[in-house]
Amino acid sequence: MKPEIYEKSIDLASQKILKKAEEEGIETAWDRYEKQLPQCSFGQLGVCCRNCNMGPCRIDPFGEGAQKGICGATADIIVARNLLRTIAAGAAAHSDHARDAVLTFKKMSEGEAGSYRIKDEAKLLSLASEYGIVSEGKSPKEVASRLADTLLQEFGKQDGHLLCTRRVPESRLKLWAELGIEPRGIDREIVECMHRTHIGVDNDAVHILLQGLRTGLSDGWGGSMIATDVQDILFGIPQPRRSTVNLGVLSKDKVNVIVHGHEPILSEMIVEAAEDPELLKLAEEMGAAGINVAGICCTGNETLMRHGTPIAGNFLQQELAVITGAIEAMVVDVQCVMPSLGELTGCYHTKFISTSPKADFPNTIRMEFHEGRAYETAKEIVRTAVENFPNRVLEKVTIPEEKQECMVGFSAEAILSALGGSPDPLIEAIKGGAVWGIGAVVGCNNVKVTHNYGHVNLVKELIKNNVLVVTTGCNAIACAEAGLLLPEASELAGDGLKAVCRALGIPPVLHMGSCVDISRILVLSSVLANYLGVDISDLPAAGAAPEWMSEKAVSIGTYVVSSGVFTVLGTIPAVLGSQAVTSLLTGGLNSVVGASFAVEPDPLKAAELMLEHIDAKRKALGLDSQR
Amino acid sequence: MKPEIYEKSIDLASQKILKKAEEEGIETAWDRYEKQLPQCSFGQLGVCCRNCNMGPCRIDPFGEGAQKGICGATADIIVARNLLRTIAAGAAAHSDHARDAVLTFKKMSEGEAGSYRIKDEAKLLSLASEYGIVSEGKSPKEVASRLADTLLQEFGKQDGHLLCTRRVPESRLKLWAELGIEPRGIDREIVECMHRTHIGVDNDAVHILLQGLRTGLSDGWGGSMIATDVQDILFGIPQPRRSTVNLGVLSKDKVNVIVHGHEPILSEMIVEAAEDPELLKLAEEMGAAGINVAGICCTGNETLMRHGTPIAGNFLQQELAVITGAIEAMVVDVQCVMPSLGELTGCYHTKFISTSPKADFPNTIRMEFHEGRAYETAKEIVRTAVENFPNRVLEKVTIPEEKQECMVGFSAEAILSALGGSPDPLIEAIKGGAVWGIGAVVGCNNVKVTHNYGHVNLVKELIKNNVLVVTTGCNAIACAEAGLLLPEASELAGDGLKAVCRALGIPPVLHMGSCVDISRILVLSSVLANYLGVDISDLPAAGAAPEWMSEKAVSIGTYVVSSGVFTVLGTIPAVLGSQAVTSLLTGGLNSVVGASFAVEPDPLKAAELMLEHIDAKRKALGLDSQR
Repeated sequence: MKPEIYEKSIDLASQKILKKAEEEGIETAWDRYEKQLPQCSFGQLGVCCRNCNMGPCRIDPFGEGAQKGICGATADIIVARNLLRTIAAGAAAHSDHARDAVLTFKKMSEGEAGSYRIKDEAKLLSLASEYGIVSEGKSPKEVASRLADTLLQEFGKQDGHLLCTRRVPESRLKLWAELGIEPRGIDREIVECMHRTHIGVDNDAVHILLQGLRTGLSDGWGGSMIATDVQDILFGIPQPRRSTVNLGVLSKDKVNVIVHGHEPILSEMIVEAAEDPELLKLAEEMGAAGINVAGICCTGNETLMRHGTPIAGNFLQQELAVITGAIEAMVVDVQCVMPSLGELTGCYHTKFISTSPKADFPNTIRMEFHEGRAYETAKEIVRTAVENFPNRVLEKVTIPEEKQECMVGFSAEAILSALGGSPDPLIEAIKGGAVWGIGAVVGCNNVKVTHNYGHVNLVKELIKNNVLVVTTGCNAIACAEAGLLLPEASELAGDGLKAVCRALGIPPVLHMGSCVDISRILVLSSVLANYLGVDISDLPAAGAAPEWMSEKAVSIGTYVVSSGVFTVLGTIPAVLGSQAVTSLLTGGLNSVVGASFAVEPDPLKAAELMLEHIDAKRKALGLDSQR
Repeated sequence: MKPEIYEKSIDLASQKILKKAEEEGIETAWDRYEKQLPQCSFGQLGVCCRNCNMGPCRIDPFGEGAQKGICGATADIIVARNLLRTIAAGAAAHSDHARDAVLTFKKMSEGEAGSYRIKDEAKLLSLASEYGIVSEGKSPKEVASRLADTLLQEFGKQDGHLLCTRRVPESRLKLWAELGIEPRGIDREIVECMHRTHIGVDNDAVHILLQGLRTGLSDGWGGSMIATDVQDILFGIPQPRRSTVNLGVLSKDKVNVIVHGHEPILSEMIVEAAEDPELLKLAEEMGAAGINVAGICCTGNETLMRHGTPIAGNFLQQELAVITGAIEAMVVDVQCVMPSLGELTGCYHTKFISTSPKADFPNTIRMEFHEGRAYETAKEIVRTAVENFPNRVLEKVTIPEEKQECMVGFSAEAILSALGGSPDPLIEAIKGGAVWGIGAVVGCNNVKVTHNYGHVNLVKELIKNNVLVVTTGCNAIACAEAGLLLPEASELAGDGLKAVCRALGIPPVLHMGSCVDISRILVLSSVLANYLGVDISDLPAAGAAPEWMSEKAVSIGTYVVSSGVFTVLGTIPAVLGSQAVTSLLTGGLNSVVGASFAVEPDPLKAAELMLEHIDAKRKALGLDSQR
């Protein structure tokens, strides 16, 4: 039975455009999902193996058919191998993004990336000092060059462990070392995952999963954290600011340029180019009232956090943005960009512009981006958009009025600054119970669940129970759209959290950035744990990914749990075909890394699981634990 | 219908043990294959995508059901992405093996791997010189240390291209550079594959496949070649020698130790430990007439090539070796080791010993191997085997009498030496037509086809037509078992090849080593091409993998074709679900890299395809082209 529109998304703007899509006969991800039903159960359970050409093999979950692959691999082995490849792909996505950031940083330091500069010298110097680089007597560019070399080593090192894990509490680093999961070179871990999952290599589920933990950690404390740090140096540490979100940010009379994907390297230049007098003049000539850059997904989060550039939507709104008929250019880099945009933009006047040397899509205009002439490329892209404005077909345009103000920019540094420079006020609020705990809610959208329903309801339930929420990625955008990223949203919070938010002038839900910026959450956790003199796993904190879908999310979940944070998943990972793997992930890991996963699609029940976990942690710390 | 035993394998020894397995009710890979039938057609066609948690998605090959995944990915995109991950896994396997070889080499140079030494100083110096390292005034260990650092850079470099591709003819390197497929750091290429195949990154089949070519090249001219070179320095360049193969090499009265997997690092020590007087004495005490080390798969090929250690079988014979009931210890490292050995060894007295920190298996004894105490570990392993000898149950033992003599050890250096130090005699023989061309036949076994049937019949047909065959891996073992690796086998060759073999005293089929040693075939191709002043793609040469099954084989096929060699696959890769990808691989690539794939399960027809290709290349070179 075809689902009703309100079952597809809780967001009114999205519902309106979904209606428009229906009327215009335009296909969206939800339609393609319906066509995929029923999905393959072997795949869903994780018991399908295609890792050699004797296969594909699959295990009969009912125990009647084959219980082993041709090589002899059991369900446990197959599920664990598939999971390890998933983690490897997720870690690769984050880390390969980080690599490009560092390479740009390196080129900048050598004067070969003229459009970039050191925006935050203080962060440069502090990071250099963390890596043991002496800055004295060196120019910022010299320091940057040395730092870039050291960071590049983190990807490429062939022996020894990562340096970038040194921010973690000592007790946790010691635990990782004892377990043999202290990460080595980032690329090496990913390559070893691919080796281990080749036919006839690693065939023990626990052994395989330990490599998964190590690889996840090389992402969270490695690739992702390096991406965040270097982007902060190049583009500035986010600070609290206001902006607007949702499809209503698209402009009726300006040229709409969407930046979509995950990297700020090009989009930073596009934001700048959109203010170029030459292009503004051209826009005027084309009959437009200006140039409106808006973001989607994490490229959007990056420009939102640093410039207050509005956001048009999260993952499942990328097609909807095009269907408004109001977009002159959909500019994409990497990750979570639907290839459907090729055909879809063809139904409207929208130019689909792909920019990354790593990613091409059907029916795009290729305007490949290279650091050496970044601003020039950005200008060409914006020019293409501007020149496309006269092609907008007014009768095809529907821009929903829904747009929502939000307050964003809560980097770890900004949060500490809001607290007056020390974690003390937050710690005291936690000790006193005004802030019951901290909830980190992150992750994607997924057509398997109602768009934004899990995100918004989980977060609302947490703040109602005085849990301060930190958020990134598509969850942050969902929260913004629901008005939760405003100080006024503290009205929805419990009394304790409400008072804290009012006192500090902050929202009860703090937008910490893009998906790689979950590293900011790790840093914040470390700061709090160190301040309290405990391990991260002792904090009254829990994580959730209510609508996750990407392999990156699996890597994230892995490093968050390996860092000691209990995490609830809202959609079911492909592991249920193995009792051993499932019970390890949802239980056994507790005795290994002091945290584990839970799977709970109902956001209210998920919140309750997180609250119970926080209660227990409060009790263990000797704090009031009766809600 | 249950297949007859003769349909499972053409090898008599294998047939006998398959019969024993049936009688004893023991399960083998062939039984598990039957239980997997029918295999999933979506998987076989490559149109199943599990790269995000909105899926699994699959494309209806008949055009009636879904034609796109939820993200909008078409069959072309899904097939290309799956293929890229396959190549990445294969390249990772070879390169991660190579990394360990170089790390051992490095530790040796620092005196931290006491059991290893520089066995071939000349190769050390010549390799160092290739990499621009000045040896003058340095001790061999100093040179080794510098060389190791340079080689480690090839894995970890974050910018610029590989140095190890410099052996390829200049025209080919130029072509790769023009196509943008000159490989960069090995690990980086693999990680980028995983990034590109993440949801929403690379969604253009051609763009994806070009990254596949680049990654394949980073394996063939990178990881694999480095593994070969460093292993030659540490353990010696293989030289022609005689040995025996097949299950009949197992001894009735000696302790049988099988070394199985792919790395020579530990097995070299085991071969040495098996001659240790202390252990020989212990064997005597245990009632054994000595210690018999025999190989399986490429660990076997490595010790065979360098020591003449006998080989008990190839991939599909690993279970059969155990079923003889005569094996005291099955010692495994990485790759192509069936996890079924865990349960299987439990049915006999065989100890199943896993040694690699990267690979564990069900029911093994872990005796983890680290370079620092390699020989000690090897001795412990052999001791465990020896002490297990009294547990052999005589009534369960059946050792087939079949064993076959063979001549092996044809490294590129050995071949040139057999030719009198210059490729000239071979070039002249090719020009004159006595040697019609060169066939490189490699690859695995696969239960989907009769064991060794494709290997042996393809090679026989080639030599009958005066094509000199070079072989590695499981094909080499199959040829050895069929008696084709003997100078006497030239009786089966055409008159021209027969005369050349007789003159040089070589077999018509030259065993060049393990799977990573396909790099030796690349080197030989380069030598011949450079000598003729042409590109590799101009040579009257063709490749084949008649029974391939592993992801490594896909990476190999990719780099062989990208190097300019037409290659025939005997089993069908999971690409047929995309017309675009299939026609690119089997045709379009010709105009890109001057070579392409063909798929032909019938070995005689496959040989004909190779011969036609060689005819055409002879014609283009102005040579006689009428067979």
